[in-house]
Amino acid sequence: MSREPVTRCAVRPGAYYDSVVLMQLQRALTGLPGVLDAGVVMATPANREVLAASGLEPGEDVPAGPHDLLIAVKAESEASAGEALSRVDALLQVRRSGAEQDFRPRSLATALKLLPAARWVLISVPGRYAAGVAEEALDHSRNVFLYSDNVPVAEEVALKRKALGRGLLVLGPDCGTAVVGGVGLGFANRVRRGPIGLIGASGTGLQAIMSHVHALGAGISQAIGTGGRDLSGGVGGITAGQALDALRRDPETQVIVLVSKPPAPEVAVRLLSLARQMGKPVVVDFLGAPLPGRKLGNLHFAASLAEAAEIAVRLVEAETDAPAPPLKTEGGRYLRGLFSGGTLAYETLLGLSTVLSPVFSNAPLSESRRLADPLRSQAHTVLDLGADEFTVGRLHPMIDFDLRRRRLRQEAADPEVGLILLDVVLGESAHADPAGELAPEIERALSEARAAGRTLEIAVLVIGTGEDPQDLEVQIATLEKASAHVCRTVGELVNHAAERLGQAEQEREGEPVPLEILQPPLAAVNVGLESFYDSLVAQGARAVQVEWKPPAGGNEKLAGILARMKGG
Amino acid sequence: MSREPVTRCAVRPGAYYDSVVLMQLQRALTGLPGVLDAGVVMATPANREVLAASGLEPGEDVPAGPHDLLIAVKAESEASAGEALSRVDALLQVRRSGAEQDFRPRSLATALKLLPAARWVLISVPGRYAAGVAEEALDHSRNVFLYSDNVPVAEEVALKRKALGRGLLVLGPDCGTAVVGGVGLGFANRVRRGPIGLIGASGTGLQAIMSHVHALGAGISQAIGTGGRDLSGGVGGITAGQALDALRRDPETQVIVLVSKPPAPEVAVRLLSLARQMGKPVVVDFLGAPLPGRKLGNLHFAASLAEAAEIAVRLVEAETDAPAPPLKTEGGRYLRGLFSGGTLAYETLLGLSTVLSPVFSNAPLSESRRLADPLRSQAHTVLDLGADEFTVGRLHPMIDFDLRRRRLRQEAADPEVGLILLDVVLGESAHADPAGELAPEIERALSEARAAGRTLEIAVLVIGTGEDPQDLEVQIATLEKASAHVCRTVGELVNHAAERLGQAEQEREGEPVPLEILQPPLAAVNVGLESFYDSLVAQGARAVQVEWKPPAGGNEKLAGILARMKGG
Repeated sequence: MSREPVTRCAVRPGAYYDSVVLMQLQRALTGLPGVLDAGVVMATPANREVLAASGLEPGEDVPAGPHDLLIAVKAESEASAGEALSRVDALLQVRRSGAEQDFRPRSLATALKLLPAARWVLISVPGRYAAGVAEEALDHSRNVFLYSDNVPVAEEVALKRKALGRGLLVLGPDCGTAVVGGVGLGFANRVRRGPIGLIGASGTGLQAIMSHVHALGAGISQAIGTGGRDLSGGVGGITAGQALDALRRDPETQVIVLVSKPPAPEVAVRLLSLARQMGKPVVVDFLGAPLPGRKLGNLHFAASLAEAAEIAVRLVEAETDAPAPPLKTEGGRYLRGLFSGGTLAYETLLGLSTVLSPVFSNAPLSESRRLADPLRSQAHTVLDLGADEFTVGRLHPMIDFDLRRRRLRQEAADPEVGLILLDVVLGESAHADPAGELAPEIERALSEARAAGRTLEIAVLVIGTGEDPQDLEVQIATLEKASAHVCRTVGELVNHAAERLGQAEQEREGEPVPLEILQPPLAAVNVGLESFYDSLVAQGARAVQVEWKPPAGGNEKLAGILARMKGG
Repeated sequence: MSREPVTRCAVRPGAYYDSVVLMQLQRALTGLPGVLDAGVVMATPANREVLAASGLEPGEDVPAGPHDLLIAVKAESEASAGEALSRVDALLQVRRSGAEQDFRPRSLATALKLLPAARWVLISVPGRYAAGVAEEALDHSRNVFLYSDNVPVAEEVALKRKALGRGLLVLGPDCGTAVVGGVGLGFANRVRRGPIGLIGASGTGLQAIMSHVHALGAGISQAIGTGGRDLSGGVGGITAGQALDALRRDPETQVIVLVSKPPAPEVAVRLLSLARQMGKPVVVDFLGAPLPGRKLGNLHFAASLAEAAEIAVRLVEAETDAPAPPLKTEGGRYLRGLFSGGTLAYETLLGLSTVLSPVFSNAPLSESRRLADPLRSQAHTVLDLGADEFTVGRLHPMIDFDLRRRRLRQEAADPEVGLILLDVVLGESAHADPAGELAPEIERALSEARAAGRTLEIAVLVIGTGEDPQDLEVQIATLEKASAHVCRTVGELVNHAAERLGQAEQEREGEPVPLEILQPPLAAVNVGLESFYDSLVAQGARAVQVEWKPPAGGNEKLAGILARMKGG
């Protein structure tokens, strides 16, 4: 009959320990004689609950808070538990093996003097110290791989703006994965080098894609993590934009993959506008966002990580997409869509969502884009003229063209309008000659615009078959004779709109990132998790580990006094 | 010098007119001598604004409300305007040409006596009368094509439940498009007959897909519109479910396409569960919903209307997908996913969203599915163990397996759990032997479940390459030796979960729809828009037009009295 196990614990208040040291302490304790289980955690409520679930709860009477280290041991006897806890301090002193560096500088500045070739600084210290270390690295003109999380977004924006102005990259915060110059930073798979460049606001997303690419026999030029918040409205995709620009110039990169959770709409439009001007195919996987179609110029939209890899590999093997034609910038800048088919309007809105922002509608993708008044367009507008508000006491616009004719005149007279989209849906019960109804209106609108010295285009999506009573060929010919541009799918219509009205190439903000930082041999300084240092060395990179301690040993009050003294 | 045009108007209060009659009146007025423009509308505020925008505003002094007919004429002179308005009543009497039916029954009952073979009734009367006509059709055991909109959702549910119990279909309300037995109902393209069956909560969506299928050289067996609200939570996909069941049995249909705006999540899961048991490929285009991947068993997800058509045509030519294996229903019914990769957790959630509902998470697809307590799973749960709440004072779960080991024990001990999903991400900086950490835990969990007489499965997604320091082959072999099921993509993992836990085939609700109603020759009664009658006749179908008038001439008070007298 076994005796009842006993649980005992110890607290080390307010001290800083490297997480790897804590994990090793826990393993060492678990391996001691008579010890059944052990837990070593910062004493947050969540961590204490996890301990409790494993029968390691020390009880409420142990005074330990989120900044205190809590060590709990479950043992066969009181004696074994006591013996284990008595060895905690000795175990905490054990230097990790593996790191084969004789002298360890205690500051980043000293480390960079030891390894001046290091263009990168890896930072994985606790979040509240991370921005300070990153800023110091930028001040030394070094690029930053910032693994730390819990960095406030305002600090992220400040760091990234500073980097942008100096032609430096800040990957992160909360960036787990990068491959630069053939060397993995943080969590990264060992993959063959090749022509596919990755940019991702998603760590395991990048890993899944690079692993699939490798399995398909192709390889990776660079993989640039941006941190999960980079494509949010607050940060605005600063790093992703720099990365696109760098991979555009990188001669080793033939195809680019951009992976992220859904970006803020205006960030998506800005980045995809950049991506469309790359002269290289770009595979886009915005996980969890509706696909705007499968292809928009050189952009290819993927529905999964595995598919993103497959498309990229296929594109390497295929002919390279032609660069997007230069955008036409004369004429009005706004688009107006006047649809009789609700689903056609909706799919057009979806496609345009990656090209233009904002697009308003009476049947919008999100409520914030609902037209205040369906009778008055705002900026870019796509209307479903078959919606209830337009059809009370009226026939459907596929039969009765009166409303659409009047609205077309209204939109064509607006000098801010450069492109009008229409649909023509043939078939049973529809108007007997829709092109015949629309063609004179189209001619009139175009000639009035010309007379006013404006550039206006009208594109018409025609849905129908050669068997339809209206005669598809005649309908198309009538529209083309009126100088309308005829499309046969929503995808074609959206592509046409993208070429006509997509954002022109932006002025490059900040300084370009020099391509040298992406080329081997890689050298780096590591501040934080020693396993990152070990990994760099194992991959043949030159590296220096900083023996980092929090300022004033983690005493924030004292650290504040020291910082003020330094500043004065 | 031209004189100033004059605008004059007339009002016909509270009367009912067929919309086609109104459109013809407007055209006739516009064609009269001296008339520049004319508008004929029910005097809703929106319609009056449209008139105003065309210079046809009669001014505030004209007393006309939403149920009154407003006729406005802009003419060269007072005389021309007056002459035009004086002809309104005569023009309203003009019988449309085209409808070549001598005797027009005034009731549905009489029409059905004239054409007893009619299995379908087309209804396009104003929304407030539509449910009454539809109910009458169901009481005569006829299927309903309900074009009318503005039918309250409660009436839609009542009609569809009644139809379900009697093996009848109600397509609509607000259903614009169907092709039944080779004949288009409402708006429909003329297409070749063939092996592709369409089901759609989207009118022009169905038309775009059928036109593309035709252009690609293939053809349509049936196209069944359901009305735009059918897949909402309120209606629950009653018609779509009946349609899937009918096309499953229909020998002419080899491939099915299901198109809709995003359904309510529980409706999507129910319908796709039905679709997975079809024994035929089903192409799913939920416009504007994120794709859960590209393929789940026999389900193929499309990103656009054109792509839905392309995939369907390709599948007709390809080998038919094998029917889904029968679902295993023994063992716990809940899934628990314990992921170290946030993106892998997220893509898994996306994929599962079409298979299971609800799935909870600490990083959910929507806030309503957020776990109340990340330390306690609910129903189906997928956890990102790398999220901040789990990593304070702890290493990332790709390095430190302690938390995952503890949570795995907790989940495996829950008798309601039938499947546990894990990920293993190899590469630089990750744990040196993740499979070695997990395998003993997996073996222990499976053997404890066996000992308790429970069926438990554990599936592991492995991300990595053959170059990774952990040795991919050894990692996979270790996991498989522990009886884990190893997957290499999220898609495979989701497919495995779907086979293991997807909803079992439901009891069929209601009566099956007899296939005869989908077979030629088609005969139908039309109540409402005469153009629908004309179209039926033009397609060679037998049809009868009902000379419908609203009860009591549209006087609702009188109609109420009449209905009560009839009821008494």
